[in-house]
Amino acid sequence: MAVYTHLSAETLEELIAEYDVGKLVSAKGIAEGISNSNWLIETTGKDGEGARFILTMYEYRIDIEQLPFFLNLLDHLAARGCPVPATIHDRQGNAYRDLDGKAVALIEFLQGVSIGHPTAEQAFEVGAALAQIQLAADDFTMTRTNDLRPPDWRDLFDKCGMEAIAGISEKLADSIGAHLPALLQRWPEDLPIGTIHADLFPDNVLVLGNTVSGLIDFYFACTDFLAYDLAVAHTAWCFSADGSEFRPDISAALLKGYASKRTLNDEERAALPLLAKGAAMRFIATRSYDWINTPAEALVMRKNPMDYVRRLRHYDALGAQAFAPLT
Amino acid sequence: MAVYTHLSAETLEELIAEYDVGKLVSAKGIAEGISNSNWLIETTGKDGEGARFILTMYEYRIDIEQLPFFLNLLDHLAARGCPVPATIHDRQGNAYRDLDGKAVALIEFLQGVSIGHPTAEQAFEVGAALAQIQLAADDFTMTRTNDLRPPDWRDLFDKCGMEAIAGISEKLADSIGAHLPALLQRWPEDLPIGTIHADLFPDNVLVLGNTVSGLIDFYFACTDFLAYDLAVAHTAWCFSADGSEFRPDISAALLKGYASKRTLNDEERAALPLLAKGAAMRFIATRSYDWINTPAEALVMRKNPMDYVRRLRHYDALGAQAFAPLT
Repeated sequence: MAVYTHLSAETLEELIAEYDVGKLVSAKGIAEGISNSNWLIETTGKDGEGARFILTMYEYRIDIEQLPFFLNLLDHLAARGCPVPATIHDRQGNAYRDLDGKAVALIEFLQGVSIGHPTAEQAFEVGAALAQIQLAADDFTMTRTNDLRPPDWRDLFDKCGMEAIAGISEKLADSIGAHLPALLQRWPEDLPIGTIHADLFPDNVLVLGNTVSGLIDFYFACTDFLAYDLAVAHTAWCFSADGSEFRPDISAALLKGYASKRTLNDEERAALPLLAKGAAMRFIATRSYDWINTPAEALVMRKNPMDYVRRLRHYDALGAQAFAPLT
Repeated sequence: MAVYTHLSAETLEELIAEYDVGKLVSAKGIAEGISNSNWLIETTGKDGEGARFILTMYEYRIDIEQLPFFLNLLDHLAARGCPVPATIHDRQGNAYRDLDGKAVALIEFLQGVSIGHPTAEQAFEVGAALAQIQLAADDFTMTRTNDLRPPDWRDLFDKCGMEAIAGISEKLADSIGAHLPALLQRWPEDLPIGTIHADLFPDNVLVLGNTVSGLIDFYFACTDFLAYDLAVAHTAWCFSADGSEFRPDISAALLKGYASKRTLNDEERAALPLLAKGAAMRFIATRSYDWINTPAEALVMRKNPMDYVRRLRHYDALGAQAFAPLT
């Protein structure tokens, strides 16, 4: 949650002049994004009626060669009526530009707020929106390898070292030891594949009342199992923040919402309990790595991997029951 | 530059419902304010046409008993046509509310951007706007003691200890030793007094082209010498950021702008060189204190006191010449 780079008003004015969006009238650095700096930009608009945008500067982690995948995906989905922000192209047609050696993109601003405690109605709509973008991406021709699959989790744990992980918590080390081998061995190979969001946390969903007004932050989007995307959303939405409490009503609503748009096949339904354990392990892996490699006083808030160890245990105990009514 | 507190959408919706501003449609934490958390809030507006506000949560430093001074001042100036954001009062007429034990205020959103490198035209308008708010505050009846006057600078240096200050830089310690005694001894006692902004840095001014669209962040406002306010603005605007370069054209424009609205008397003009050294010393004092008391890795960016030692030296060398054409 930070703005890493200072952009002067003069720099912003010059940048905005490269787009057909009117003149700059306001720019506020916003406290969103871990690897990006973001500004909420207001302009006079193309026809003088005012317009708002998010300006994103890609600071870390993102390989510029992958930007066309993310930005084209937004355009593809927006053009098909999905609630995602379209990329604004500059006067030369570029989806992103270079600014002082960093890539920046101007992206549509969407109304809505991120909810902390979803209602069942909202969870249903989120499940439906997830299926909607998966279906709309069916004819999206670009692909991107998921770089956070089971062997990548193992690599992250190896980089941490099990001693450092046990230093966070013995229970953390135990859970990894107990579940990672089976995930590596039994991870499916032949489920339906497509373009997935892969990070559909409440932070990345904007709602207006019960309507999903925006799905944002597609920077983990990739080509992988469609049902894994649902498993990630499930682990993100259907528990209390620290993972101690499973919320069956929210779970049922999310799954029903997804099923209202896309029907899982038998293999996908059978795989859900395993995929959900994998989704929990994926966040255990990145959070453990970040926990060990981020100084406690850094600008970025460290997230506790134990929140996902608790989810993993719920999935282990509940099995297919966590995915009623689908299984 | 941080948002210290997380407010859920549900909490924000309940809060906004206490005001006659329509329903919440967007909330973004913005990276502004050192002692506050701020959100850019969008609502459907009173009549459904949309409206925007800044929600400020007072986190540190601000004594809640002083909040009425700051917020009433905004209302007073806004009612007199000054480009400052008015406070939005809740349905019961309160200018601020309690939220989880912290005070929050909803404040008008003003368009405009903070300029990094002012033109002479912009500096003229800023000088004129400063005089405008001083004049408009003439019948403001509340007062607030300036808690950053010369004896307070001395107390801050005492709290730091000269050893720690010399640890930042020997030149810093030398400059304090060379100039603080004279400032304490010769500080004026009988210049015209009024309500002053006392912190009119470029960060706190919004412009649209050459028009000043907003003066913001009145949380150092107090009752003190009107000419000292001009001296603070002068030290903030008329140098390169690190203080190494004096900008006579910007200085002349700022002073002419001020003089276009309010005429300094002879005593004020004669005092300007001393007041400007004092303004530089005030920022040397707070920056030295913050430098010593803020861990290097903290969320807040430390500002180098040496930037103001360089300004102090310019004022010492230039004397009244820094305030041509007024002196």
